[in-house]
Amino acid sequence: MTVKPLSLHPDRLFPAETDTRNIARRLYAEVAGLPIISPHGHTDPEWWATDAPFGNAAELLLHPDHYVFRMLYSQGVSLEALGIRNPEADPRESWRLFAERYHLFRGTPSRMWLDWVFAESFGLDVLLGAETSDLYYDTITEKLATHAFRPRALFERYNIEVIATTENPLDDLRHHKAIRDSGWGGKVITAYRPDPVVDPEFEGFLDNLKTLSDLTGEDCFNWNGYLAAHRKRRAFFASMGATSTDHGHPTARTADLSSAEAEALFKRVTQPSPSAEDAELFRAQMLTEMAGMSAEDGLVMQIHPGSFRNHNPVIFERFGRDKGADIPMRTEYVEALRPLLSRYGNRSDMTIIVFTLDETVYARELAPLAGHYPALKLGPAWWFHDSPEGMRRFRENMTETAGFYNTVGFNDDTRAFLSIPARHDVARRIDCGFLARLVAEHRIEEWEAAELAVDLSYNLAKAAYKL
Amino acid sequence: MTVKPLSLHPDRLFPAETDTRNIARRLYAEVAGLPIISPHGHTDPEWWATDAPFGNAAELLLHPDHYVFRMLYSQGVSLEALGIRNPEADPRESWRLFAERYHLFRGTPSRMWLDWVFAESFGLDVLLGAETSDLYYDTITEKLATHAFRPRALFERYNIEVIATTENPLDDLRHHKAIRDSGWGGKVITAYRPDPVVDPEFEGFLDNLKTLSDLTGEDCFNWNGYLAAHRKRRAFFASMGATSTDHGHPTARTADLSSAEAEALFKRVTQPSPSAEDAELFRAQMLTEMAGMSAEDGLVMQIHPGSFRNHNPVIFERFGRDKGADIPMRTEYVEALRPLLSRYGNRSDMTIIVFTLDETVYARELAPLAGHYPALKLGPAWWFHDSPEGMRRFRENMTETAGFYNTVGFNDDTRAFLSIPARHDVARRIDCGFLARLVAEHRIEEWEAAELAVDLSYNLAKAAYKL
Amino acid sequence: MTVKPLSLHPDRLFPAETDTRNIARRLYAEVAGLPIISPHGHTDPEWWATDAPFGNAAELLLHPDHYVFRMLYSQGVSLEALGIRNPEADPRESWRLFAERYHLFRGTPSRMWLDWVFAESFGLDVLLGAETSDLYYDTITEKLATHAFRPRALFERYNIEVIATTENPLDDLRHHKAIRDSGWGGKVITAYRPDPVVDPEFEGFLDNLKTLSDLTGEDCFNWNGYLAAHRKRRAFFASMGATSTDHGHPTARTADLSSAEAEALFKRVTQPSPSAEDAELFRAQMLTEMAGMSAEDGLVMQIHPGSFRNHNPVIFERFGRDKGADIPMRTEYVEALRPLLSRYGNRSDMTIIVFTLDETVYARELAPLAGHYPALKLGPAWWFHDSPEGMRRFRENMTETAGFYNTVGFNDDTRAFLSIPARHDVARRIDCGFLARLVAEHRIEEWEAAELAVDLSYNLAKAAYKL
Repeated sequence: MTVKPLSLHPDRLFPAETDTRNIARRLYAEVAGLPIISPHGHTDPEWWATDAPFGNAAELLLHPDHYVFRMLYSQGVSLEALGIRNPEADPRESWRLFAERYHLFRGTPSRMWLDWVFAESFGLDVLLGAETSDLYYDTITEKLATHAFRPRALFERYNIEVIATTENPLDDLRHHKAIRDSGWGGKVITAYRPDPVVDPEFEGFLDNLKTLSDLTGEDCFNWNGYLAAHRKRRAFFASMGATSTDHGHPTARTADLSSAEAEALFKRVTQPSPSAEDAELFRAQMLTEMAGMSAEDGLVMQIHPGSFRNHNPVIFERFGRDKGADIPMRTEYVEALRPLLSRYGNRSDMTIIVFTLDETVYARELAPLAGHYPALKLGPAWWFHDSPEGMRRFRENMTETAGFYNTVGFNDDTRAFLSIPARHDVARRIDCGFLARLVAEHRIEEWEAAELAVDLSYNLAKAAYKL
Repeated sequence: MTVKPLSLHPDRLFPAETDTRNIARRLYAEVAGLPIISPHGHTDPEWWATDAPFGNAAELLLHPDHYVFRMLYSQGVSLEALGIRNPEADPRESWRLFAERYHLFRGTPSRMWLDWVFAESFGLDVLLGAETSDLYYDTITEKLATHAFRPRALFERYNIEVIATTENPLDDLRHHKAIRDSGWGGKVITAYRPDPVVDPEFEGFLDNLKTLSDLTGEDCFNWNGYLAAHRKRRAFFASMGATSTDHGHPTARTADLSSAEAEALFKRVTQPSPSAEDAELFRAQMLTEMAGMSAEDGLVMQIHPGSFRNHNPVIFERFGRDKGADIPMRTEYVEALRPLLSRYGNRSDMTIIVFTLDETVYARELAPLAGHYPALKLGPAWWFHDSPEGMRRFRENMTETAGFYNTVGFNDDTRAFLSIPARHDVARRIDCGFLARLVAEHRIEEWEAAELAVDLSYNLAKAAYKL
Repeated sequence: MTVKPLSLHPDRLFPAETDTRNIARRLYAEVAGLPIISPHGHTDPEWWATDAPFGNAAELLLHPDHYVFRMLYSQGVSLEALGIRNPEADPRESWRLFAERYHLFRGTPSRMWLDWVFAESFGLDVLLGAETSDLYYDTITEKLATHAFRPRALFERYNIEVIATTENPLDDLRHHKAIRDSGWGGKVITAYRPDPVVDPEFEGFLDNLKTLSDLTGEDCFNWNGYLAAHRKRRAFFASMGATSTDHGHPTARTADLSSAEAEALFKRVTQPSPSAEDAELFRAQMLTEMAGMSAEDGLVMQIHPGSFRNHNPVIFERFGRDKGADIPMRTEYVEALRPLLSRYGNRSDMTIIVFTLDETVYARELAPLAGHYPALKLGPAWWFHDSPEGMRRFRENMTETAGFYNTVGFNDDTRAFLSIPARHDVARRIDCGFLARLVAEHRIEEWEAAELAVDLSYNLAKAAYKL
């Protein structure tokens, strides 16, 4: 096999039909240069706190990207050989295993994101493959050592207006404090993700409550103390820039128990080994409690349900969480969200953003709900569906019932920092292509599409997340 | 913002690709002028009985259209301010709230239906918006006072060959009688929708049975009397033109109990506060009973399951039913319909039309069922899915297994009278576009597509509903 | 109606957009002539064992094709009149019932497959219809009597490299033996489908175990004897060319019981009338047992869940199995497959191919699972979804998360021998069209699409099934 060229086509992801493509080009020209609003993601605030250089190619692009190593694993490459939790692996050789199998990513969004990073960030002009593995490894690793590839320099080069990280209530937010104290102008904020102290089945739940008690001076084994501790930590997170909370539950179930019932339930789940039903009911009740606190403190609420975490016990035991073994599940919203929505759904001064991994609910459940309840908004296509076809299905299924203005723009939701501009670029291109089709089919006017393109790329996220 | 022009593009909703669009144009030219067959809907027969003029713009186009006010409500506009159940609201100001937010409807079918009504029925040539709100309000309200906008005149202008309304068994059909007695030539028929006397959880169920007893002279608290009352009312509805029944159940469940079991169940559900399971089983049994009566009297049976009615308790308490808070639910058909189909599904002299709000069953359940059972036919894309993308998904998912001839054409299913021609026009355009793609991809010949276009626009509905 | 011409357009099924179509043409030119790999199907090995001529048109093309007669039945034609289990029906008249209703198949894959058979295999150049019914019947029936239409001649003319049939463990494989002994060069292999001795609810299950005992010399009413009998029959099937097993369960449920639990369960299900839950659990356990045997003997495992068999009791009583009354059901995979995958999913030396009749799991469940577990691969769009739109949805929903290389190429899965080349041709055209769109949207390069086209048409099936 000979070395193949790499270049990013300016029309990539636009519909092929000539008139539609021309419209998409015009729309995209208006939004391509807009700053990035990244209101939900998992980058590490330490990067910007210390501004230390990133390591080598494998460490930056391979080890943290579960999209990449899950595909390699599915085709027989061991995680050890890729260097996952294995400091003895030679990163150059791990990279080679990836390079030799780059054809596996054909047709996947990872291929588009990575090619963008390679071409646009690192200036590479040949395709990754067995023959170019060392060239890639050396080029990337060398550039990462330069000042231009430090975290803050990339943040500025990528034109990021604001980025939110995600921390749990036990985090002291020292990195966010360091960023503020540094005088650097980049806007990096946190988000309140309380799963470790809300989910009775989370590893170390009772220990976490103990730590939360210590942190807040509240007795977190007492229902009212526990709620007070949440309020304190939410206020602290808000003081460090947080404008949102995030809740990653197995299901979308909510509950609205009486105070006495909630307190009794809390007592049961703070005993060792609570029942699965009690754990589920407690998570359900806590969504409604958190909505109530959002009604008080104004933090935007995000609900991210439906992932079967750590499906592969072999991988979980040896490599831990977040190793590409989380699998989406069917998720019900109509009955599940009703208790919460009956209580808070009619408030037009609140924002509750719901995500899903189950695309079958787009047109059937979520669009009808968000097209009615003032508090409810639709998060963008998420995780496995954060892809050209996935985003297209999102728009095709959501728009007719919910419209565009009950959606909240794009979230990259990633820990792969270098891919963030590529992800936003894919979203902008797909949205412009979708809008172009509506124009070409005379369903909206082009001037409306141009307004919408800016709204979807920038304004809606900024407004929904109060940024 | 300046005032923008409004015009309906002749190619709207056709695929953008040149050859496909040209085919679609040719197909559409053959069906654009066909009369409207509207075999299922919710218009008010009083309109044609009295031929009284419609009121103002808000009263005609805003208050009865839950698609419109649910979107406005979702974006923070109160129903009171829109004039819903609020006679004190100034209709001109309610209309302004709508006009100022017309951009919310971009990409929705409501936008297309409304623009058609504005441009085609009222001759408006500027887009609705804040600046044109009064122009719209005045133009529409003035025209509504003229003879050309009386219900019968619009019926004729819209080239409606037949329209079916929906009434429950307690209705005396006085308006249908008045229409007949008036000598006016418009064909307005009724349909038998027995939910209030079939669903033990319907508001006032026991009172309704009492009224039904009075109406029919049968003892409707006795199983056989109850069934006899249905037979009498069905016969009366048929004498007033009804050719169909309609059943709006929460699920598609059917049952085929023995007479003794059915009678015992009937006794339980005619006591106050029957169990939820008994209520569900009774509805299930009644679908099979109604199918049996259809086998006797020839009325076409329609089953419309899967809506969670009145999801928002706050709205239900203050504003009642049908206020945009009904949400589709996942719906199962394979097990659910089996009792009924085992009894009547093999009869090729019966027609049972099934609708769904759950698009996931199109290819998986409904197309395979309708492609086998002689009695079963597929209702068109329904409610939230009665939209360009929704209709396209219907054809893409149903056709390969059920073919076109196990479908029954289009139903507008609306109480928004003025939008009826727009809705049929959207359906005809989408069907022609779908057929054009099949032709462009050499999957059928253009002469076949031309036959199909007429079948889908006119013949199939007329035949399936015996009109 | 006049007689219409029949011709197969060289661009059929390619996207209409000019650039995309040109790319599709170039890709298709590379794969159109590749040999057929048919690793999963239901043709009758007796055909090639005896090489006896096929009968008349109705017997060959109508009676065995449940896609065809289910559609006719759904439109009121009785199965008796079509000659199904009715030797008294005149095949010419049965054929006429079909010919007169050929318009019912517009837009279905059957239409495309049949037109290919008519035009390409039989040289017919007019469309099937009432006027051409006798011409068709005579032409086809006459040609079937010629040597060129004998099973082996067609096998060679169709360029079939290998075809797998499906037999159950009680089959003596005499026809496969006869094929081998005949010295004919065609490669016809078997596959091990143990449903009749694995499913306690299969007709005659206990009798089948008795027969299996006799065949193997093992006591199949003893758990270990039963397992040993499977091992023996698998080895025998492998010796007759089998490279795979196939499992057609109602659900995808698997279990991983202890030996003692499994043995106790086996005792319960080998009593008359086991409980439904025990039967389901036994099937679940047997999937894991079969996977274990595959780990030993290397047979590729296929799991085909989700069909409600014999939904129509009237048809089942009079006509038996496989009469077009099997209906897909919603199917869950994430929880269901976990026991099996926890045990064998991490083995990169095994291949477990999963199929589904529930397209909603493509993007949500199956692609994420197959994009992670080394042992798991995705079977192609199956049964009702083995159609242009169905295959397109398969690629659009699977590719972004699973890539192309966790899929296994195309399976025709048919007993309609003459349609096999047409089915592979449809799959190749749809895949080339899908790849062409990716190229036209600059998501992959054309040289990559060309490699992928060959992989999807030929290499992947050959490799996955070890052919």
